[in-house]
Amino acid sequence: MTEPLTDLSRFSINQMTVKQLTLPELVSACVDLGVPGVGLWREPVQQYGVEAAAKLVRDAGLTVTTLCRGGFLTAIDPVERAEALGDNHAAIDEAATLGTDTLVLVCGGLPAGSKDLHGARERIADALAVLAPYAAERGVRLAIEALHPMYASDRCVVSTLGQALDLAERFPAEQVGVTVDTYHIWWDDQAAAQIARAGAAGRIHSFQLADWTTPLPEGVLNGRGQIGDGAIDMREWRGYVEAAGYTGPIEVELFNDGLWARDGKEVLAETAERFVRYA
Amino acid sequence: MTEPLTDLSRFSINQMTVKQLTLPELVSACVDLGVPGVGLWREPVQQYGVEAAAKLVRDAGLTVTTLCRGGFLTAIDPVERAEALGDNHAAIDEAATLGTDTLVLVCGGLPAGSKDLHGARERIADALAVLAPYAAERGVRLAIEALHPMYASDRCVVSTLGQALDLAERFPAEQVGVTVDTYHIWWDDQAAAQIARAGAAGRIHSFQLADWTTPLPEGVLNGRGQIGDGAIDMREWRGYVEAAGYTGPIEVELFNDGLWARDGKEVLAETAERFVRYA
Repeated sequence: MTEPLTDLSRFSINQMTVKQLTLPELVSACVDLGVPGVGLWREPVQQYGVEAAAKLVRDAGLTVTTLCRGGFLTAIDPVERAEALGDNHAAIDEAATLGTDTLVLVCGGLPAGSKDLHGARERIADALAVLAPYAAERGVRLAIEALHPMYASDRCVVSTLGQALDLAERFPAEQVGVTVDTYHIWWDDQAAAQIARAGAAGRIHSFQLADWTTPLPEGVLNGRGQIGDGAIDMREWRGYVEAAGYTGPIEVELFNDGLWARDGKEVLAETAERFVRYA
Repeated sequence: MTEPLTDLSRFSINQMTVKQLTLPELVSACVDLGVPGVGLWREPVQQYGVEAAAKLVRDAGLTVTTLCRGGFLTAIDPVERAEALGDNHAAIDEAATLGTDTLVLVCGGLPAGSKDLHGARERIADALAVLAPYAAERGVRLAIEALHPMYASDRCVVSTLGQALDLAERFPAEQVGVTVDTYHIWWDDQAAAQIARAGAAGRIHSFQLADWTTPLPEGVLNGRGQIGDGAIDMREWRGYVEAAGYTGPIEVELFNDGLWARDGKEVLAETAERFVRYA
């Protein structure tokens, strides 16, 4: 049995969970509530200014557990591919500036008109060969996130933790690993074994939580459930990553229209409380 | 390369694809358009009368390729479990009356409040042990359908073809096999190997087509794309099942609000045309 958590020392709030908060509001709420870590997103960080954001979180004593996100590496068109690589180089630079060691990758869906999942996955590998050494030189690890198979066509052709590891293992573990996110893998009876595989190789670079609730909303993007509201046994999954040797931060990343409509600090407090109760 | 189909001899229309048609309208449209097979659903068949429906399709010379659907076998409550078994016995009787050899099973999601996928899958196995011999005595095979992982909590805890086979292989192949449905498995890089496994054991009891289109609608039930409109290479998947030895009917089963809003016979004609062009 995995022991219950007793405090927030491993808790990190992903910025998207409370995107109604400005970056200074988020940082202030974290300090007030004793939340030690944040996972940041590129767009709001860019809006605030990357250097300024880095100073803001550093001065507050917060750890930036991840930057979300790079990726979208499946284009066939050479111009689009070059643009995607350039954008990922920028994301790596931003991660380094923010002082996080982990850039999460959402690898991209099928290009318009394509039905070739295998080819798309190979193009991801080709791009990683360019990006991984660049990231390593800046102290940043790439963390491939398997997304739920319902996103396979339009968002991420990497649908299982096993596929993510098949890609990651073509590169050194300190350069490319995986993000383990309960929302995307909870249904998969192979996932526990794949977590063990990832942990043994030192490739669990991020661990994220979200709960599975139904009915799914139109477009299936913004229905991630608050921890404890859904079908996923969070403690069971924490047990798997810890048995695999992972002792790092645990980030809660929810995209949820209902949570976004509420007071952001109240949602952060609720999320912290749920984290201790269920994770 | 899989050879293109040249005619409708292996085509079957699943009744749900054109649910706007009454059963006599469906039968008449199939005869007019040269469609040789139909997959029927219990509710409209019961409404028409099972014996009468059997006579109607038999007199028209149609083959009933499947009856959809039994299943929902994951309840914990003993009364609910007994009701589910009773309902599945009735479904088997109906399949036998209709003269089809295959009852498709949608196995059921998590009971309210449960987070135990493994336990739910074991309860399905327990139920199959009761149902499979009953079905075999009536000349009916059970075909476990893996549903897309986005249905894992509320509809079917069997999310991959591999899981479906793990269940089926506890029973004789002539009693329990699988339904291979492109919509549910197209994202899975293990599925081709699992089709080979299923075929080698004589367990491909049904082959169904639907295409994957996005954005998914709210509730994700009624967004199955017309053949050729989406991300799935139908001919590739037909190649896999044929390489595995399957030569039976190919059923097109679409749940699609847009198709349901149109003239049913026109949709049937379009579906038959798409079948020859893409499958």
